[in-house]
Amino acid sequence: MRDVLDRLAADPFNLVVTLDAERALAEAAHPRPGPLSGVPVGVKDLIDVAGLPTRCGSNVLADAAPATADAPVVAMLRAAGAIVVAKLHTHEFAFGPTGDIAAMGPARNPHDPTRITGGSSSGSAAAVAAGYLPLALGTDTGASVRTPAALCGVVGLKPRYGALPVDGVFPLSESCDHVGLLAPDVDSAAFAWEVLSEGNTPELGKLRVGVLVDDYWQPFDPVLDDAVSTAVAGLRAAGAEIVEVRTPMIDELAGTYPRIVGTEAYTTHGAWLAERPEAYQPQTLARLTPWADVPATEYVRTQRARRRLVEELAQACADVDVLVLPTTRLRATPIGAEEADGHAVRPSLLALTLPFNLTGWPAVSVPGAVSDGGLPTGVQVVGVRLDEHAVLRVGAAIAQA
Amino acid sequence: MRDVLDRLAADPFNLVVTLDAERALAEAAHPRPGPLSGVPVGVKDLIDVAGLPTRCGSNVLADAAPATADAPVVAMLRAAGAIVVAKLHTHEFAFGPTGDIAAMGPARNPHDPTRITGGSSSGSAAAVAAGYLPLALGTDTGASVRTPAALCGVVGLKPRYGALPVDGVFPLSESCDHVGLLAPDVDSAAFAWEVLSEGNTPELGKLRVGVLVDDYWQPFDPVLDDAVSTAVAGLRAAGAEIVEVRTPMIDELAGTYPRIVGTEAYTTHGAWLAERPEAYQPQTLARLTPWADVPATEYVRTQRARRRLVEELAQACADVDVLVLPTTRLRATPIGAEEADGHAVRPSLLALTLPFNLTGWPAVSVPGAVSDGGLPTGVQVVGVRLDEHAVLRVGAAIAQA
Repeated sequence: MRDVLDRLAADPFNLVVTLDAERALAEAAHPRPGPLSGVPVGVKDLIDVAGLPTRCGSNVLADAAPATADAPVVAMLRAAGAIVVAKLHTHEFAFGPTGDIAAMGPARNPHDPTRITGGSSSGSAAAVAAGYLPLALGTDTGASVRTPAALCGVVGLKPRYGALPVDGVFPLSESCDHVGLLAPDVDSAAFAWEVLSEGNTPELGKLRVGVLVDDYWQPFDPVLDDAVSTAVAGLRAAGAEIVEVRTPMIDELAGTYPRIVGTEAYTTHGAWLAERPEAYQPQTLARLTPWADVPATEYVRTQRARRRLVEELAQACADVDVLVLPTTRLRATPIGAEEADGHAVRPSLLALTLPFNLTGWPAVSVPGAVSDGGLPTGVQVVGVRLDEHAVLRVGAAIAQA
Repeated sequence: MRDVLDRLAADPFNLVVTLDAERALAEAAHPRPGPLSGVPVGVKDLIDVAGLPTRCGSNVLADAAPATADAPVVAMLRAAGAIVVAKLHTHEFAFGPTGDIAAMGPARNPHDPTRITGGSSSGSAAAVAAGYLPLALGTDTGASVRTPAALCGVVGLKPRYGALPVDGVFPLSESCDHVGLLAPDVDSAAFAWEVLSEGNTPELGKLRVGVLVDDYWQPFDPVLDDAVSTAVAGLRAAGAEIVEVRTPMIDELAGTYPRIVGTEAYTTHGAWLAERPEAYQPQTLARLTPWADVPATEYVRTQRARRRLVEELAQACADVDVLVLPTTRLRATPIGAEEADGHAVRPSLLALTLPFNLTGWPAVSVPGAVSDGGLPTGVQVVGVRLDEHAVLRVGAAIAQA
């Protein structure tokens, strides 16, 4: 480890933002076991490392406070035994493919220091090319892992969108941002990828069933409560573990839904709404028209809040495989009624399902075993860590009970 | 089939928009073999069925021309042997969870015709509940498969986001829209899901390598051409089939990138840009400021064009497993140069990589076997139907060649 740190400290190519020497030496003395035990890694200075500032190559963040936690992708490397030794050069805010625009000046290509490294993961690619490090994390929004890899003669992997978590990574464009990795050869890249993608594979064991206890999730119709209780009791009897789940973010998450759907629907209907509003049912017209003039930055902020809150919901559900809850808060209401039993109809039919459109998780509604008065009850099974096949299997267990 | 059609024709619940009787009878006489051979299915009137108009429950589309093609999800059902017999009631433009707002009036719940079916896949859930059909397609943006399933006492599956194609489906909110299915019991739903999800699994056989022949993809540096040719020749020698791929949409697709990234980046930086613009490097400042005032509808339209063009690119690549191309158009340029060899540097380093941030496909840059003058060449392998492991294996074959 000392030689790695010495080489980085003497770097003539302007690649090193911060050297985490003391911690690296301490960890190297007692390396954590794992597939990457003792392997020194570098992290692009756009990605949080606990205790170090994330400056993104910019004077805008010259006074940034140290990050309070590792980005999850960094935590995954540490969990595998890797030792983070340095934060590395980035093109300012990752917004450029050259690597020569940054508060600390240009990164230099180890093959020819008068030439660019490519960017924006300039330091990560060049530190691997210079032989300083066998592995580094980068990010890629349009080129930023692959192009510096190409220009520096190393391997750069951009996984598919969403394969590695972007939490704790300063965003450039969340709809295009990918976390990736840089390594000297394909075998090293493949090995690191195995380690990182392994961390994303949930371990399925005995079924853990989450029951949502916050007020938001409670139905208005007590028969729906009975239907869910019966379903959960049946799963418990079949050996499942029942876990209470608290979701303090749910109201805020659900609050993002109208703006997202309204804006996207208005984009579709705008021309028709201007030309022949009378062709719409009045209720549809009234629900579409408020969304004409949303600024793009506000829409993007809403999408961003959605993603943050979905991540919080996923963390709240981290201990369960599936959620079991009512599909609706009311059973079928009279046609034309806007209120029933003192509750507005429309939100009663949307509130318990829309969170899983925002998360995109698989979900199924199956008829509950309990009813009265002839109207069906719907019990919803949501896959937190399970796919559609597994969700349907749980649904079948409920429907048979 | 005659009895199915008779029951649908006599429906008292206002569920049937169009009966495709003639075609259904003809197909039933000679049913296509497959796991759903001869099974009658209904399709929510938000989803295209070739030869029938898609009216979305609205007078706005009262005069809609017949769809020219089946939506892919309908085509998948037909390929499995299913027979489409009817288009079914939907809440107007799928924008409501009740099922009682539509140009043709409310759908009625078979359990109690004075009550709503739930929506927006009102006809699909109720037609299954009434025993008319064993399977129907619906869509779910916030509730619209699960809530009518719950209120009608059937099974409604919303798969995970993106699991079933939404092409040929009138959008409500593309960031929340899911295609789903309705069935009388979990076993039927699970069987139909097996059939539909099977259709999404690519058949991997002998490696088919795509080579992109349009001008857009050609590098400026002839050494990069040599590196790719050598890589492709090596793969051919190892038994791969080489396929020329044409991508007429690539310029338009690449054209969506600046607005998407600019708008999202501006949303992040807006407050800092107002407070202390001088802290940014001048080049970064100049690239961020043009994106302050984009309307949300324009941003959404750009994202929509991106998705359409990604789909076109995927179709253009339908015959290959991977693409092999240069990572950049130039090798490492001199630090500070905005032009090199008569070409602008920045786009030369972005153009060949950014398309795969827009698609989100996995991609790796590996060092090519050919170079000169000491500067590395980067060869890019992009997974069209392959995951990161497979892409890395192809990369390893190139790097060893």
